[in-house]
Amino acid sequence: MNAPPASEGDRIFTPTNHVACMLRFEAALARAEARAGIIPNEAATAIAESCRVDLFDVAALERDALRAGTLAIPLVQQLVARVPPDARPYIHWGATSQDAIDTALVLQMREGIARLVDDLVAIGESLAALADAHRKTVMPGRTLLQQAVPITFGLKAARWLSSVARLVVTLRRLRHESLVLQFGGAAGTLAALGEHGSSVARFLAAELELELPDLPWHAERDRPASVVVALGVGAGVIAKIARDLVLLAQTEVAEVVEAFEPGKGTSSAMPQKRNPVEAVNAIASASLAIGVVPVMLSAMSQEHERGVGGWQVEWTAIPDAFRHTMRAARHLRSAVGSLDVRVDRMRANLHEASGALMAESVAAVLTAHVGRPEAMRLTSALVERALRERVTLQEAARGDAQVSRLLTPSELERAVDAASYLGASDEMIDGALRSWRDVRQAGTG
Amino acid sequence: MNAPPASEGDRIFTPTNHVACMLRFEAALARAEARAGIIPNEAATAIAESCRVDLFDVAALERDALRAGTLAIPLVQQLVARVPPDARPYIHWGATSQDAIDTALVLQMREGIARLVDDLVAIGESLAALADAHRKTVMPGRTLLQQAVPITFGLKAARWLSSVARLVVTLRRLRHESLVLQFGGAAGTLAALGEHGSSVARFLAAELELELPDLPWHAERDRPASVVVALGVGAGVIAKIARDLVLLAQTEVAEVVEAFEPGKGTSSAMPQKRNPVEAVNAIASASLAIGVVPVMLSAMSQEHERGVGGWQVEWTAIPDAFRHTMRAARHLRSAVGSLDVRVDRMRANLHEASGALMAESVAAVLTAHVGRPEAMRLTSALVERALRERVTLQEAARGDAQVSRLLTPSELERAVDAASYLGASDEMIDGALRSWRDVRQAGTG
Amino acid sequence: MNAPPASEGDRIFTPTNHVACMLRFEAALARAEARAGIIPNEAATAIAESCRVDLFDVAALERDALRAGTLAIPLVQQLVARVPPDARPYIHWGATSQDAIDTALVLQMREGIARLVDDLVAIGESLAALADAHRKTVMPGRTLLQQAVPITFGLKAARWLSSVARLVVTLRRLRHESLVLQFGGAAGTLAALGEHGSSVARFLAAELELELPDLPWHAERDRPASVVVALGVGAGVIAKIARDLVLLAQTEVAEVVEAFEPGKGTSSAMPQKRNPVEAVNAIASASLAIGVVPVMLSAMSQEHERGVGGWQVEWTAIPDAFRHTMRAARHLRSAVGSLDVRVDRMRANLHEASGALMAESVAAVLTAHVGRPEAMRLTSALVERALRERVTLQEAARGDAQVSRLLTPSELERAVDAASYLGASDEMIDGALRSWRDVRQAGTG
Amino acid sequence: MNAPPASEGDRIFTPTNHVACMLRFEAALARAEARAGIIPNEAATAIAESCRVDLFDVAALERDALRAGTLAIPLVQQLVARVPPDARPYIHWGATSQDAIDTALVLQMREGIARLVDDLVAIGESLAALADAHRKTVMPGRTLLQQAVPITFGLKAARWLSSVARLVVTLRRLRHESLVLQFGGAAGTLAALGEHGSSVARFLAAELELELPDLPWHAERDRPASVVVALGVGAGVIAKIARDLVLLAQTEVAEVVEAFEPGKGTSSAMPQKRNPVEAVNAIASASLAIGVVPVMLSAMSQEHERGVGGWQVEWTAIPDAFRHTMRAARHLRSAVGSLDVRVDRMRANLHEASGALMAESVAAVLTAHVGRPEAMRLTSALVERALRERVTLQEAARGDAQVSRLLTPSELERAVDAASYLGASDEMIDGALRSWRDVRQAGTG
Repeated sequence: MNAPPASEGDRIFTPTNHVACMLRFEAALARAEARAGIIPNEAATAIAESCRVDLFDVAALERDALRAGTLAIPLVQQLVARVPPDARPYIHWGATSQDAIDTALVLQMREGIARLVDDLVAIGESLAALADAHRKTVMPGRTLLQQAVPITFGLKAARWLSSVARLVVTLRRLRHESLVLQFGGAAGTLAALGEHGSSVARFLAAELELELPDLPWHAERDRPASVVVALGVGAGVIAKIARDLVLLAQTEVAEVVEAFEPGKGTSSAMPQKRNPVEAVNAIASASLAIGVVPVMLSAMSQEHERGVGGWQVEWTAIPDAFRHTMRAARHLRSAVGSLDVRVDRMRANLHEASGALMAESVAAVLTAHVGRPEAMRLTSALVERALRERVTLQEAARGDAQVSRLLTPSELERAVDAASYLGASDEMIDGALRSWRDVRQAGTG
Repeated sequence: MNAPPASEGDRIFTPTNHVACMLRFEAALARAEARAGIIPNEAATAIAESCRVDLFDVAALERDALRAGTLAIPLVQQLVARVPPDARPYIHWGATSQDAIDTALVLQMREGIARLVDDLVAIGESLAALADAHRKTVMPGRTLLQQAVPITFGLKAARWLSSVARLVVTLRRLRHESLVLQFGGAAGTLAALGEHGSSVARFLAAELELELPDLPWHAERDRPASVVVALGVGAGVIAKIARDLVLLAQTEVAEVVEAFEPGKGTSSAMPQKRNPVEAVNAIASASLAIGVVPVMLSAMSQEHERGVGGWQVEWTAIPDAFRHTMRAARHLRSAVGSLDVRVDRMRANLHEASGALMAESVAAVLTAHVGRPEAMRLTSALVERALRERVTLQEAARGDAQVSRLLTPSELERAVDAASYLGASDEMIDGALRSWRDVRQAGTG
Repeated sequence: MNAPPASEGDRIFTPTNHVACMLRFEAALARAEARAGIIPNEAATAIAESCRVDLFDVAALERDALRAGTLAIPLVQQLVARVPPDARPYIHWGATSQDAIDTALVLQMREGIARLVDDLVAIGESLAALADAHRKTVMPGRTLLQQAVPITFGLKAARWLSSVARLVVTLRRLRHESLVLQFGGAAGTLAALGEHGSSVARFLAAELELELPDLPWHAERDRPASVVVALGVGAGVIAKIARDLVLLAQTEVAEVVEAFEPGKGTSSAMPQKRNPVEAVNAIASASLAIGVVPVMLSAMSQEHERGVGGWQVEWTAIPDAFRHTMRAARHLRSAVGSLDVRVDRMRANLHEASGALMAESVAAVLTAHVGRPEAMRLTSALVERALRERVTLQEAARGDAQVSRLLTPSELERAVDAASYLGASDEMIDGALRSWRDVRQAGTG
Repeated sequence: MNAPPASEGDRIFTPTNHVACMLRFEAALARAEARAGIIPNEAATAIAESCRVDLFDVAALERDALRAGTLAIPLVQQLVARVPPDARPYIHWGATSQDAIDTALVLQMREGIARLVDDLVAIGESLAALADAHRKTVMPGRTLLQQAVPITFGLKAARWLSSVARLVVTLRRLRHESLVLQFGGAAGTLAALGEHGSSVARFLAAELELELPDLPWHAERDRPASVVVALGVGAGVIAKIARDLVLLAQTEVAEVVEAFEPGKGTSSAMPQKRNPVEAVNAIASASLAIGVVPVMLSAMSQEHERGVGGWQVEWTAIPDAFRHTMRAARHLRSAVGSLDVRVDRMRANLHEASGALMAESVAAVLTAHVGRPEAMRLTSALVERALRERVTLQEAARGDAQVSRLLTPSELERAVDAASYLGASDEMIDGALRSWRDVRQAGTG
């Protein structure tokens, strides 16, 4: 029994599915040419009937492709052998290898983006639920990995959410803008089709439900490059969330951990371990996805009407970019789908380091009384004393004669209350949730 | 006397202009807070008056920034020292270092994109003119650096043009979508501004004519990353055109060369040299720009509310990405603005290797007479014979009894005439020119 | 029937061979622990007997590894199920997952380097033969793709050779320096083995014929990173040679082409095509290999005693780096093993552009008569005239009154003779061949 | 007053120092040619006397270089203008631009490596002291950011040290192996020097104290690429240590922090902040350095005898790689030179999460009594209970009837004592210190 694919990307970007998509191109081309009246209908039907990937030996095609230079050459040869002699001359008529290969990759990318967006939408739904549920769950905000001022876990989730929302918008747009038909013949002029080139191109695009570009793009690769860089940005978005999860799961922080499942992230030797496996896998896959981006960009300077190396790089780079990004998304989806949010631990961590993350708040209150410079000086002294004497900031304040004179106990109480120092967090969460609803609705429209 | 900058990017992305943009942020913040009624108007005026970069020692700021951790800390300190004591407490009120630094970079990026688009539009204009002027200029189309079938130089220019057009569209969109205000305070809650956070943010965005996002994005970096990856794709577009120019300028090809100017691309030792300097510089700068992309993407996984390293990377990476891409565009603009298109050499090169690039055309004509398999066999034999006997394909055909029977001399003449085998080139050029006009008009609207 | 692997790398770096190497580690560990007297000999024997990869379901292991976090956890579980109950407690004793996985990768890398060196030595042999055979074969030297001064094809081959020689030396050294045992237990202290840690480590290293490092290197990854960067440099060396081959094979240059084989690099539609398929494949694979390098380097900052993502990246990155580099080498080996060197075409190309590549030579001769400034001026005028009037440099010189006075016809003849203007080429070739012999001998010693 | 350079790299890799090194080449070339008897001694003296960088307008040279294609062309022109007419013809005799530029970069790289090694040796000294001083300082070992089993801070420092030691060895070797003279003339044959090429090359290498290679390496770039990839590995080594420091400095961990200095890493708004500024800067610089590596490797496929873009990339890439790596090293040196190691906090953190990191130790002790499977089951139950009931592992064990029967209180005491579960840590530290001493001595030899 074979293992199930780690994500849909591992199914879509296989050699077998690539050949299947090339065969879709060849079948659609034959039908388009029949419709244009330049090949017989019977030939088109016969060709289309043989364009079934299960009839082909994909491993043999790959081996032969290394010698031939492209997968299309042995594929067309095998296809010729499978159709009746009368139809043979009409196979691949007027097309070049790259027309079939690029269009097949476009079809794969179209499906890949759709499935990736599915996972991102699921992630977004989980994050939106967390943002709403935890809008009052106070925790330390951390800058440079130092506690800074309080935030809520809902705000953190809303910020993650907003980046996922933007990613979904970008990917949907690319699906329409960048995934267009490739069809130009030997050097992009469609010369072999005489005056029929444009109409065949139009019919072919319609058959495959792809946009028809002004020009072939055999050596102008900004479109596939734009898709891959968007995956790279997406991998970066995923990696950021996953890294936060890993940091929150540290033994000494322990605010959010991946939900326990038997056999998941455990260690045979160390039974206490609860490794954040999904987040770690997401980080690793995201790094691999990012690694593809410069390869793809460097490959863009393809020579003249077809490149010597750059185009060939894409055959590996594009599938790699999708597989890795889609795996990253799948792992993140698993992680955020069942988080164990430890609200008590978040609250407890606010008291680390004497609760000094309330210093900005205390200084703000004091400023109203003594002006900012003196308020800063006083607060610094309080923080220093609290850390030195291992008391809370509040206790240090109570122990300071000047501060005690300036602030009543209830004013002080409020000044060190994290829940009272959250600024515009709530509005921000609302904004993120509103934008997410728009993204959701655009997807179903 | 200092050298003029190699491109506008070398002016916009200097430390001095970065500080100037940070000061614009601080001035706008003070005005926004005065408008929100939380600081006195006089303080705002006093602060804004001191926000002039010529009053600051930028080199000293940079040195102090290394210790402080950010440029904003010493800048605010110096600014404090420059304003009257009464106004001092209101400087940088409620903001965090990253608010000033990120917004400054956004302002720089906004200008950078505008100037880059200027150069790209100029490139597009040159290419559009070439596409139109050379729509009948026949030359060899080349795949894998082998002559394939004929194309026109106009078609080649049109394909270059279409990728430049898409790039301009993308950059213009990013200018609006990705370049938004950064404003969140210490950990993104705007807590120090109490209930005034949202209104100050709104006024501040208006002051700087920037969009106001739902949330701060201190550690969610998809927006600047999207800009940098677009520059990377742009660099790839530029590199492709530049590489074609370098290949066309080879001594043995010599179809298009950069216009001669005294002292440009010459060699003191080898007076015959006419190095394609602009294209070479464009390639080099483009490679450097692409190199920034993975650095930027890897830096996206910024920890919690502010990162340890990733954010700091951007301070170098973003300016580098712009400088290199803008230099690449500037060099390409120079190159395509004054090309020496050698029409005669293009025509002569069609006859390299016995003029075998017309083989597909000959095969097509023969197919009508003897079917495709036999036509392919016959044509292959003609090509082989022409190469072996060092005669033209036409001569080989004339010398072949079977082919002579099948084709009249005038049919053969036409079959080997490159100008008759250009397919849909003209329509394609029209399409590219039409799309370019749309891009041009969108820019002026 | 399955396709044969495209290179040995596609055999060595499979999941199956990875599991096989992990099992070698587990078997060797059991034997080492028996030798150290801490587990029974019978247990070691029983364990070792079950460490056969054909007994395991590799696909299931991979699936389970995604949940468990590492491949070692399900592997040890399956292994436990396969050995007699008495021996079970002794499996994987004192080791951590990473010990098994890293050491397995080290064993794979050791074999990978050996096979890669085999291909590089074969490439070197071909290049050495070309360097020697063509030491007098004159051709244009080209800088910035412009003809500069003459060289020999032997010199070009010698320069390629010298970089291959340095690569072989580097790879051999890394095989010894960087491929060492990984063994540290849960957090690198070998604590579970009590006082036996060091002796077990020593015996284990001996079993696997690996060097024993001072310390485990679970999170200090400079050793595997050094291997991958060396592959990256190797890919660059290969790409340079392959790119030269592609450029030399251009229709308009045609000096060196890959030997013709039926079905190789041909086009069904364009029978004249002889695409440089091996070189193109080498370039593509080399680009993919280089793409892995920054992924590997970015992954080096692995947290504390085991990383969250960086280590996991290596599981894909290291195999990718080897597979791509080894494919590149294999393709280059095929290319250089059967080149068609067209000496006549090299000679003919010396006369492109009026034979102006002899200008430096002419200037040098004139310098002896009129000093350098005047010689340069005269030569420039000759070049300009030759190009304008489409005559050879020699003819232009003959037609110039002043030059004719300065140089006798035989002096001029010699000044424009490429074969007389080769400087130290011969000594250089000798140097490269001598160094190559040293490399060869070091390998057999 | 200008800011001091952030590191020696910022001094060595300036345009001014590059020009200075090119002038060293030109002066040495003139002397070598005088020694070979092919130019007059007086000319050599006159040339050498003008080769002083303060005589040149570097900014103007850079501007002119953009047009000319290389910096050498305007430099030689300016140099010509500065020497007496008699000596002028002998300037740059027989050399090509690339000879001067590459050799200048080699001289810069030689100095850069020396200064980088200085910083690394200082880092190593600090780490060696920490490794020795803290060999008994127990702290949690962490894998996947989860507490695993105890280690000592000395062991952690020793592991950091060992990677620094290997880096120093690599860099020293590269200084000799890869930094060699570049000298080949127009296309690498030294033809312009006639039969004197080899002797001039030998004298020139001696003048500059550089190794003389078999061949010029104008387009074979494995040598500079090897230097840059070593810097990349070095950046990875630095980043790993710096990342550990940042993680150890987290508010919730607080085991090691950068020593306090006024104004360093503080926040004006949050007086409690003690940001790990040096480590953060080191991480950022290291990421930038790593980003250069693929740029350099991709640039290796330089065309024929001099490349179109790849070589030009190096002019920026090599200085960038050095500057960023040297900055990273300098920041790390500052960080490790004055760490505040909080031994009490390390000890306290061992008790996080019920002290469950001693589970492996407890399991090992129980195994002796009940066999491994039962020991694992028992220990898992203890861990679960301790975490659930918020008691220590020891308390949970005392409360378990079966475990209490199996282990005496003192056995249990010892089983949960981190200091008793350190395995071979001490020997490992000794090994690392021994290797470091060897590296130190090799440097002074």
